[in-house]
Amino acid sequence: MAQNITPRAKDYPQWYLDVIAAGQLADYAPVKGCMVIRPQGYAVWERLQAELDRRIKETGHVNAYFPLFIPVSFLAKEAKHVEGFAMECAVVTHSGLEKCEDGLRPKGKLEEPLIVRPTSETVIGHMWAQWVQSWRDLPVLMNQWANIVRWEMKTRLFLRTMEFLWQEGHTAHETRREAEEETMRMLDVYADVAENVLAIPVVKGQKSERERFAGAEDTYCIEAMMQDGKALQAGTSHYLGQNFSKAFDVQFQTRDQKREFVYTTSWGVSTRLIGAVIMTHSDDEGLVLPPAVAPVLCAVVPIYRKDEEKETVLAYARKLVTQLTGAEALAKAEKLAGGREVVEVLCAGKYQGQKVVLDLRDGMRPPDKFFWWEQRGTPVRVEVGPKDLQNGAAMTVTRHDRAKTLVKAEELSSAWLESKLDLIQAALFERAAAYRTKNTFVCDSFAEFKAKIDTEPGFYLMHWDGSAETEAKIKEETKATIRCRPSADVMQTAAGPVRLDVAGVDPYSGKPSSRRVIYARAY
Amino acid sequence: MAQNITPRAKDYPQWYLDVIAAGQLADYAPVKGCMVIRPQGYAVWERLQAELDRRIKETGHVNAYFPLFIPVSFLAKEAKHVEGFAMECAVVTHSGLEKCEDGLRPKGKLEEPLIVRPTSETVIGHMWAQWVQSWRDLPVLMNQWANIVRWEMKTRLFLRTMEFLWQEGHTAHETRREAEEETMRMLDVYADVAENVLAIPVVKGQKSERERFAGAEDTYCIEAMMQDGKALQAGTSHYLGQNFSKAFDVQFQTRDQKREFVYTTSWGVSTRLIGAVIMTHSDDEGLVLPPAVAPVLCAVVPIYRKDEEKETVLAYARKLVTQLTGAEALAKAEKLAGGREVVEVLCAGKYQGQKVVLDLRDGMRPPDKFFWWEQRGTPVRVEVGPKDLQNGAAMTVTRHDRAKTLVKAEELSSAWLESKLDLIQAALFERAAAYRTKNTFVCDSFAEFKAKIDTEPGFYLMHWDGSAETEAKIKEETKATIRCRPSADVMQTAAGPVRLDVAGVDPYSGKPSSRRVIYARAY
Repeated sequence: MAQNITPRAKDYPQWYLDVIAAGQLADYAPVKGCMVIRPQGYAVWERLQAELDRRIKETGHVNAYFPLFIPVSFLAKEAKHVEGFAMECAVVTHSGLEKCEDGLRPKGKLEEPLIVRPTSETVIGHMWAQWVQSWRDLPVLMNQWANIVRWEMKTRLFLRTMEFLWQEGHTAHETRREAEEETMRMLDVYADVAENVLAIPVVKGQKSERERFAGAEDTYCIEAMMQDGKALQAGTSHYLGQNFSKAFDVQFQTRDQKREFVYTTSWGVSTRLIGAVIMTHSDDEGLVLPPAVAPVLCAVVPIYRKDEEKETVLAYARKLVTQLTGAEALAKAEKLAGGREVVEVLCAGKYQGQKVVLDLRDGMRPPDKFFWWEQRGTPVRVEVGPKDLQNGAAMTVTRHDRAKTLVKAEELSSAWLESKLDLIQAALFERAAAYRTKNTFVCDSFAEFKAKIDTEPGFYLMHWDGSAETEAKIKEETKATIRCRPSADVMQTAAGPVRLDVAGVDPYSGKPSSRRVIYARAY
Repeated sequence: MAQNITPRAKDYPQWYLDVIAAGQLADYAPVKGCMVIRPQGYAVWERLQAELDRRIKETGHVNAYFPLFIPVSFLAKEAKHVEGFAMECAVVTHSGLEKCEDGLRPKGKLEEPLIVRPTSETVIGHMWAQWVQSWRDLPVLMNQWANIVRWEMKTRLFLRTMEFLWQEGHTAHETRREAEEETMRMLDVYADVAENVLAIPVVKGQKSERERFAGAEDTYCIEAMMQDGKALQAGTSHYLGQNFSKAFDVQFQTRDQKREFVYTTSWGVSTRLIGAVIMTHSDDEGLVLPPAVAPVLCAVVPIYRKDEEKETVLAYARKLVTQLTGAEALAKAEKLAGGREVVEVLCAGKYQGQKVVLDLRDGMRPPDKFFWWEQRGTPVRVEVGPKDLQNGAAMTVTRHDRAKTLVKAEELSSAWLESKLDLIQAALFERAAAYRTKNTFVCDSFAEFKAKIDTEPGFYLMHWDGSAETEAKIKEETKATIRCRPSADVMQTAAGPVRLDVAGVDPYSGKPSSRRVIYARAY
């Protein structure tokens, strides 16, 4: 039943894939580089979507849907954009299939080929040109949840796949300042979701020119550290200036009756975040999920050896589930379960829509059930056997630290569970933050950096002369890149807090630098 | 401000497009046949999604995500399926673009072309073959929300577009009976959503073989009647038997240790339903939306002519909004609105997440505001002017019947609004049901049918000999098709209730028939 998981220390990339397989989060699709998101993985995405969508709407945005197909000619309209995306576009050239000797072949060649959207700035710019007339139509604050295709050579489930799901926000403003404020506002929203929903500590910062989105004036990001010390870009927010509005002629009449191009932004996060969640919190036993995104919050597992114990233990387990979720929720769930042996009870309150399950599977031994729920990242497990029944207690186990606590039956309640889950959520964030601190270093010698990045991977706070040349050379020699110029002036490191905004010398070029940036290897 | 809308009687198809344009629901995309769903239209989809997704989950299904791209060879595995879809598949043949004289051209030819999913039975079958081993893995109850591409020649916004959004449920079962039960269960869910959320009365029934889904053993549908008397298929649920499980080798070990192919179903509804909502309820003034899916439930419009009136009228309007939504919600909305002149206040309670707006636009005359909200289908409007302030009252206008009622200020409350909206929802359903009844006819003469279908379009309850030949002939001569064999035994008609399950004679062939079916022209 339980699948073997390669330890992190032995083979970190394999560990990641094993965690995904054991947790049934995703699978490879028949088309190379594509992914199937299985229900366990998709449920995490749905939780994340709900949390982010709420914040997107609370900041005044509305959802819309723009088409999957974009005329090839659109891509060419913004010079840097086409350079960034032309090589990785899926191209539709035909509109049908016909039978041939060895099966089916394309038929009905299109006059102009279409690309499958790699991002939607171009088609949205085209539509805005029709919709926006005057300053009264601004700001335009839109978002879409959609699938995206970028032809990738090296793919990895969730982290980099040919097709992925994301949201892409697109906004248009009267002034540069408003657009810049929007860019930062959404970066803050992303950081909020990463830290307070996914329990992933992130560094907010600015990308170097080299790492900018193709067509942006400025790209901001949130960067997270995985358990192998590598960085993962978890979200980006772009100030696009008037690049796209000029390319697609999105003009408006200003308050003083002039014509001007709108200032635009775009920002996105994707199913890559699920990969970040997995890599940040999981351990050698498998998946660990923060309660805020765990589809199953708590698994109640009855234990009995003899048939005569079964009935009383099950009754006791049901009683405890009732205490955790309410009698009505359990009754509804049992009705719904029909013949199925895992009863899924919906929670109310803060964790509304997430589940407590009662695992009644008859053909499965209790230890196998424990593994089952552990490998699915279930934050809390409650084990109840004949002895617990006698003692009026239950054994509770928290997934993230595998700590066991005997709890009196009367203490178990929805409030108990909620409070436990809140503590777990906080503990996961703290653990990840401590890991990042421990693996963040100040470094002023390139030789030292080059030696240490292999043996002590992590974030290296180094001075940078600001040149693309230095950045490229360092990447060539170390495979490390500038992750960002952090917005904060102070960062925690293994050696304590460090100021970033103090002038110094670039350790590679010897040229002056006004500020430290983060170097790291990255996903 | 207000856009002209062609009256239904003059040009029904143009009326439909005018309603969409005036309501800013959707727009044509640059790629022919594709659609942009604008925020006003997408908000309706989101409400529908929320209602349907809840019901899909309450019946035990889980969401997942399968890939957009499917190998061409998959399509050929099920004989009827390939016939149904080969001619309308978008085909991806290249993975990049390169510069050429006149712009960009496809580059990187794929070894095997890919199709963009026209539906996902094939790729899901392929995955199930890997996931399903034993009866313990059954039933598999999955759903996905996704975009779909079918190359259509004649497109119409929402009703038939090259790309559309939908949900597709896919389930696998141990037995034929279970799969058949599932097929009917989801048909019931669709009927529930159509009638109780969208206020569209539907007929549940079985499709003829000719109208079956390509690859299904049996297709069931819900059929609605539009205001031009034409039928619209609003949702389908298919019993697929073992057709796809045999094509993709989805076998399981039975309870008695044998190997068998699973029995599968699939079922889907799409953004076409938005078209159905528009066509069912709207009138010559524009969009009418059922409260259950209206993004804006109520628009409060202050009216003042002189500057000295402005302040007191606005204060009064604010007071009424506070009564409708609560002071906290208004304060939050005003903070969020920033400089924007339409304050969007979120409702709590039954209509949670939907909005009451306070329209403070200064550069717009009140009559233009009235049109604005009418054309957006807003169910309730509250007008407040200096006279209303004096009288301690407000003029309320309901969109669907344009009825005006003077209401005392103290009566306006969230309970008042909720009750008003409930009544509107019920009235819309009743009105549509009455329209359908009035345009449903019993007919026993083909000559009569042929004459009447032009002048009195509607549902014609006629006997059918069960042959595909008769069906095809009638379609050829009248453009009408068999919409379904209704599940119910009695249907309301213009001449009163009629039994369908009484034997008779096919009016075309003269052959015997055991039951009446519905003939109609259809979208």
